[in-house]
Amino acid sequence: MTDTIYAADFLLTMDADNRTIPDGAILVSGNAIIAVGTASELTKAHPKAKLVRLKDRLIMPGLINAHMHSGFLRGTAEHLPVWDWLTLHINPMHRMLQPHEAEAASFLCYAESVLSGTTTLVDMWRFMDGSARAASAIGNRLVAVPYVGEHPDYDYFDTLDDNERMIQEWRGKADGRIDVWVGLEHLFYADEAGQRRAIDMAKQYDTGFHTHCSESNIEAAEFQKRYGKKAMFVLDDLGFFETPKAMMAHAVWLEEDEVDLIARRGVSVAHNPVSNMKLASGIAPIDAMLAAGVAVGVGTDGEKENNNLDVFEEMKVASLLGKLKSLDAAALDSWRALEMGTIRGARAIGKANEIGSLEVGKKADFIAVRTDTPRMTPLFGEGEYFNLQHNLVHAVRGGDVDMTVIDGKVVVENGELKTGDMKELIARIHDVAPALFARRKAWLAENNQGTKQWTKG
Amino acid sequence: MTDTIYAADFLLTMDADNRTIPDGAILVSGNAIIAVGTASELTKAHPKAKLVRLKDRLIMPGLINAHMHSGFLRGTAEHLPVWDWLTLHINPMHRMLQPHEAEAASFLCYAESVLSGTTTLVDMWRFMDGSARAASAIGNRLVAVPYVGEHPDYDYFDTLDDNERMIQEWRGKADGRIDVWVGLEHLFYADEAGQRRAIDMAKQYDTGFHTHCSESNIEAAEFQKRYGKKAMFVLDDLGFFETPKAMMAHAVWLEEDEVDLIARRGVSVAHNPVSNMKLASGIAPIDAMLAAGVAVGVGTDGEKENNNLDVFEEMKVASLLGKLKSLDAAALDSWRALEMGTIRGARAIGKANEIGSLEVGKKADFIAVRTDTPRMTPLFGEGEYFNLQHNLVHAVRGGDVDMTVIDGKVVVENGELKTGDMKELIARIHDVAPALFARRKAWLAENNQGTKQWTKG
Repeated sequence: MTDTIYAADFLLTMDADNRTIPDGAILVSGNAIIAVGTASELTKAHPKAKLVRLKDRLIMPGLINAHMHSGFLRGTAEHLPVWDWLTLHINPMHRMLQPHEAEAASFLCYAESVLSGTTTLVDMWRFMDGSARAASAIGNRLVAVPYVGEHPDYDYFDTLDDNERMIQEWRGKADGRIDVWVGLEHLFYADEAGQRRAIDMAKQYDTGFHTHCSESNIEAAEFQKRYGKKAMFVLDDLGFFETPKAMMAHAVWLEEDEVDLIARRGVSVAHNPVSNMKLASGIAPIDAMLAAGVAVGVGTDGEKENNNLDVFEEMKVASLLGKLKSLDAAALDSWRALEMGTIRGARAIGKANEIGSLEVGKKADFIAVRTDTPRMTPLFGEGEYFNLQHNLVHAVRGGDVDMTVIDGKVVVENGELKTGDMKELIARIHDVAPALFARRKAWLAENNQGTKQWTKG
Repeated sequence: MTDTIYAADFLLTMDADNRTIPDGAILVSGNAIIAVGTASELTKAHPKAKLVRLKDRLIMPGLINAHMHSGFLRGTAEHLPVWDWLTLHINPMHRMLQPHEAEAASFLCYAESVLSGTTTLVDMWRFMDGSARAASAIGNRLVAVPYVGEHPDYDYFDTLDDNERMIQEWRGKADGRIDVWVGLEHLFYADEAGQRRAIDMAKQYDTGFHTHCSESNIEAAEFQKRYGKKAMFVLDDLGFFETPKAMMAHAVWLEEDEVDLIARRGVSVAHNPVSNMKLASGIAPIDAMLAAGVAVGVGTDGEKENNNLDVFEEMKVASLLGKLKSLDAAALDSWRALEMGTIRGARAIGKANEIGSLEVGKKADFIAVRTDTPRMTPLFGEGEYFNLQHNLVHAVRGGDVDMTVIDGKVVVENGELKTGDMKELIARIHDVAPALFARRKAWLAENNQGTKQWTKG
């Protein structure tokens, strides 16, 4: 296999110094980066390597979406606070969802992701054999986290048996691109035996644990009522923070001592700023988490909470929301936002030794972003007016991504998906959506009080 | 001249009923819309018209950017609250800016605007002959608002003499696409005589008046100190609200009685949610303004405050910020956001009889948005799962705009600018920016206390 040099006007490494190399390049061998430097250094040192020179482009690490859900409810479940929305739209969908529908959703969302520059996804979804097949075909790096309920009220979700089988069958597959963690929709979606088994399973397989927590302010009261303690202390006492890698989605309503606790316990956070605004959940204390040393990544949440899967947009809104929360324009600056979308995201999912930056020995997961656009102008990748990080966070969008390479394989080129037929993936959604919506509607008509919810009782 | 039917999968009219027409079309004659209906109705009734059928596209009114500034400081003036930022970056730039630099900035920003679906701009900028030439060439509909200072401390801005000359020379030019209003950077940037003359000039020429107001919370205290009254009452008492069309940019810190006042006085607001977050200004009470009947449009603010000019993004953030402010997921819904970007924006600038919706008799200002993308999937333009408005606000970005037509003329086609050479416009910015930055740096070195500012004394 010929090694390939990818060169561009600028190479943004996101290494420990956030180094940018003008006229920079990486040398890719198989699925790995084996050299980083200027284009002239690399072409001189490796004269036999194939050279791909990307003009008017910037190369940077592929983005990491630390929390999303496959789905195709986009724009059909709007204007409700999180728990009502779960009752009227989301949980009834989960009751009715069938495997072929779940698989179609993953294919759509995984294609959207690579087209907008995301190379690694943490997807909490259902019937995830279909998701694993989608990632295998489209080419994503995937952390599959089954949406588990282990409680009589939530018996229509995936089970821990399903989760364990997914671990056994899919972990390490697709040339190692697929990982499987233990998932739980929410702590309250499992009884005590289920909670215990989830923890034990993550330990047994030495894998991560991911759940939603402290998204809405009404959860805090419920934790106090049920356990007499704050949420993070409850999870810790139950043993969830002894799993090899625990990552909390949202963590909006953490108090100071909870932030300190998760920092001490090495628990990471997937921050979902757009979703937190859209569902009116609140503003997570990200500045405090970063100051305490918590590994924070960004997530788009699902197509129904955002309503797109553009991690560039998510980085921008993370920065904007950080500034608004503190009324400090210097808060959550562009470097921090970029790090959350790349290397901090990699740390949050425990994979910073493999991905998140362009460094020798890491996987060849990278993207090329167009620089020949008005919103990238002016662009200074060196010198005192250096603005590349600000342009990437605050001006660029996922649609500016021109090429996406994952594990050394080109999956998007010239802005087009190379690993699937986009028209067919879209058509499949329009084929399957009406039946799911009809079944959900029928179920809601028969159960017009909505499903039994802990917030509704 | 042949009339042309533009037909697409969906036509979003933004008329009084926000009507969407599946397989919809408009008939354009010259610069005007002369019929609206289904494609089959229009082709049958007008068999001689040329038919442009846009497949996998949605047609909607062109977006209105109710407040922006041309410029090319993008990403070079970051992380400062608004008044420090003015002192260190923006005002020194204004001191040093030369006409050819200002013109290059307008060409860049006007091209960016049409490429992302904006057909009408309210631009507060300098040396606006260059801006008028840019709009003439690129094809924008422009409300030119000179950045006026009439005060010894701000004598490096445009003057009211410049403003009056712009009105005389440019109003109604470019086939009527160019309008000129009276502008003032801020009330405090004019002495009493200047304030009086600005008001009189707007009345004399029967034109609009636009200024920044109540962006930052420190302004409220300064208004109290100088006038013993809240900002809107000061502007009203001085006579600014007797101008034919007064529009305030930002209006973040209005109190309830100020909202009531501007509603009564027919004063409109340009809401800049991204800028207000990025400069840590705060959250404007938009829900209260809409409830009171204030005409509110959205603006991107400048390339240095945002850092792009994407009104789609602005509509999304307006909706998100409205939900966050009230912690109500139903607040500032997608229809309200879309209206602010179209018909409400048109009302805010006093042009709702001409633009802002696709209706018979209005100008042919419209855009085509791609629907064959993952982020537009699924798309329901009719029926109970209708989600077109949510997709447009929360999923789509300016890069999804495929065609932009202004005043009947195609200025963007297949996503490419037809009225200018994008490469050359970008190159011109890189040509002129270094000299401006160097002059600003030299000035700052000689005046290291910063410029005299009312907040600094």
